[in-house]
Amino acid sequence: MENIIRPGLLFAAEGHAKILIALFIVLLAAKLMAELFERLRQPAVIGEVLAGIILGPGLLNWVQPTAVLEALAEIGIIFLLFTVGLETRPSDIFKVGGTALITAILGVILPFIAGWGLLSLWPGYSWVEAVFLGAAMVATSVGITARVLSGMGLISAEASRVILAAAVVDDVIGLLVLAIVSNLAAGQVNYLRLGLTAGLAIGFTILTVTLGTRVVNRVKQPVAGLRIGHSLLVFALILCFGLAAVASLIGIAGIIGAFLAGVALSEATEGTRLHQQSEVLMEFLTPFFLVTIGMKLELSIFLSLNVIWLTLAVVGLAILSKFVGCGLGALRMGKRRATQVGVGMIPRGEVGIVVAQIGLSITGNQMLYGLVVAMAVITTLAAPPLIRAAFKGEVPVAQDSEYASELQNELS
Amino acid sequence: MENIIRPGLLFAAEGHAKILIALFIVLLAAKLMAELFERLRQPAVIGEVLAGIILGPGLLNWVQPTAVLEALAEIGIIFLLFTVGLETRPSDIFKVGGTALITAILGVILPFIAGWGLLSLWPGYSWVEAVFLGAAMVATSVGITARVLSGMGLISAEASRVILAAAVVDDVIGLLVLAIVSNLAAGQVNYLRLGLTAGLAIGFTILTVTLGTRVVNRVKQPVAGLRIGHSLLVFALILCFGLAAVASLIGIAGIIGAFLAGVALSEATEGTRLHQQSEVLMEFLTPFFLVTIGMKLELSIFLSLNVIWLTLAVVGLAILSKFVGCGLGALRMGKRRATQVGVGMIPRGEVGIVVAQIGLSITGNQMLYGLVVAMAVITTLAAPPLIRAAFKGEVPVAQDSEYASELQNELS
Repeated sequence: MENIIRPGLLFAAEGHAKILIALFIVLLAAKLMAELFERLRQPAVIGEVLAGIILGPGLLNWVQPTAVLEALAEIGIIFLLFTVGLETRPSDIFKVGGTALITAILGVILPFIAGWGLLSLWPGYSWVEAVFLGAAMVATSVGITARVLSGMGLISAEASRVILAAAVVDDVIGLLVLAIVSNLAAGQVNYLRLGLTAGLAIGFTILTVTLGTRVVNRVKQPVAGLRIGHSLLVFALILCFGLAAVASLIGIAGIIGAFLAGVALSEATEGTRLHQQSEVLMEFLTPFFLVTIGMKLELSIFLSLNVIWLTLAVVGLAILSKFVGCGLGALRMGKRRATQVGVGMIPRGEVGIVVAQIGLSITGNQMLYGLVVAMAVITTLAAPPLIRAAFKGEVPVAQDSEYASELQNELS
Repeated sequence: MENIIRPGLLFAAEGHAKILIALFIVLLAAKLMAELFERLRQPAVIGEVLAGIILGPGLLNWVQPTAVLEALAEIGIIFLLFTVGLETRPSDIFKVGGTALITAILGVILPFIAGWGLLSLWPGYSWVEAVFLGAAMVATSVGITARVLSGMGLISAEASRVILAAAVVDDVIGLLVLAIVSNLAAGQVNYLRLGLTAGLAIGFTILTVTLGTRVVNRVKQPVAGLRIGHSLLVFALILCFGLAAVASLIGIAGIIGAFLAGVALSEATEGTRLHQQSEVLMEFLTPFFLVTIGMKLELSIFLSLNVIWLTLAVVGLAILSKFVGCGLGALRMGKRRATQVGVGMIPRGEVGIVVAQIGLSITGNQMLYGLVVAMAVITTLAAPPLIRAAFKGEVPVAQDSEYASELQNELS
């Protein structure tokens, strides 16, 4: 019997069955854990990473990170950041601009110094690795905070707007810092090259954010007139992968291009199905990213007392530096609001994890990877109760924009 | 300069940029060709295959079939057949049952004998290869015909219903024949194993079609009550890959499982967003399948006069055998209707191409692959004008079911 119905019996392609089984197991496990975490009122994202830790070589070894899973994971992050971009309207950011910008900048500087300083002082880490941890500390996950605030009906509150805008700015700066750090890590530092890359990156970002909406608005009509089905979706996909390719040719992460493509499309495509469509792609592909992250984590690194201390220090500094930095930035809104903003910026979530993955591929340092993943996971778990506490007693705000109610619907 | 902004400058992962560029080029080229073909009133599917021929190693060599593209292609067919399945309501098939069944069966037998007979008589082909061509001739592409009829407002006409139902039955029988052929091709024929596989395959199909809708109806409520977002979509994806994995473990193609998952979900999920959501996934992934098909085609095989004659013979027999077989099956509807049905069953489209791909992976015969792809492409190009001629003068039919109008919307 064993011999009769083994996988790939009829089709020469044994890999065929293996891929299908792997996809099935990954999706099922990720979503079971997501559901479990939702029921425990914890972020689903963390559940999916945990599914990867359980399935992966470290524990059950049911699924291994193959080239196919890695490719799906990569496309998964592309759609994750594209969708985040779609929900990021440039005009919303410009509106709460002043406070958000100060919040974002202090929320970049303090965490970066904290991460870099800690690893510089801790024995056994190189300068590059220290800078990497600094970069990883910079990003803020909009998703988690938005989700909690949305659940409380507070997504339109003033503090929430500042958090969302500042988190976006943080992500962009964080990814730019990462690009520069990666360049430094490449070996011989070529300042001309470094300057050129930074210049191209900043120019590309500013150009896309300022001109993107206008360009998309202009081509929207011709695109809608195309004969092919789902022409807007097709256009969006081509733009997403086009800008991702440009970003990686310039020398920054492809995900920045995908994010900027989403931003460029966000306002011009309001009221279309595009936002729901990109969520479908994200829903299918993101689990592969999160599970792959978990699969690559070597739990054994945490068996050393030295690493446990270091992890506690990293997590503590990650929480403190964001809270203080962003809180200071928002201080002119009053103490209570400043506390809310500071707490709302704590979770590193998926963007922190993206940095961890890029750091692993460049430094090859499993320990650093484990540290950053642990930091992202723990700050994400710690944030929701803190946010609920800081916003306790606030009266739910009537949603004053179509965008907010749409976001509310999507998130709840 | 060349040296400064080369791909993957900052990120160690040079493959990263390469994958993104390949995805961008494939999507862009596929959709440009699709749009061009739509404007020429030709099937977009053919345009996308042509994009692959142009981009691939045979001509421009801009993109090569890598492991990642092949994996996306494979997931692309999965979603293609899942979506076809979603549009296949068991009760619609049962309604026009009698005529459709005879049409389908004669539409399987005649083409199979024609393809198998031709290659058996033609020198230089093995018995297995002859049987393969027979299997490739069996499938009918619902998509192309449905699209043309829908454009004429005739998707609900009686002949159209028979065509759609018979095409579905043909696809299922075709894929089962393929599974058996693949088994034969595997080498030593083990009749016990062959019987077991055929039994499992038929049992699996009947079980899913008869019980599937009921099971899905029963779990629909609990699924909707889950806390995770898009729970119905997630459930559908897990069912799709689960049944695909089961199918390939049984020894039949994973796509049959995906198709059956779609059928099981079709009636129970009417009125939900699932149908549009699966189209989004199909829209993104199917181009990779079609382009990969084109990339693998070696045009040089058609430089021999012998192959050109054989191709003409194959295409001629493919058109004639389906037309006669299905026309005979529908003769009791009258001569005019029978002609309409016969013509409507001619295009082999994407399912023929799926058979070609599996045939290539098993026999490794590039010539046979080229023949089958050419057959699928030419029958698909020939069908629309023939269908328009056969249905000329028919009065557009009021769409009597919600399903038909939905189909109409989706296709036009």
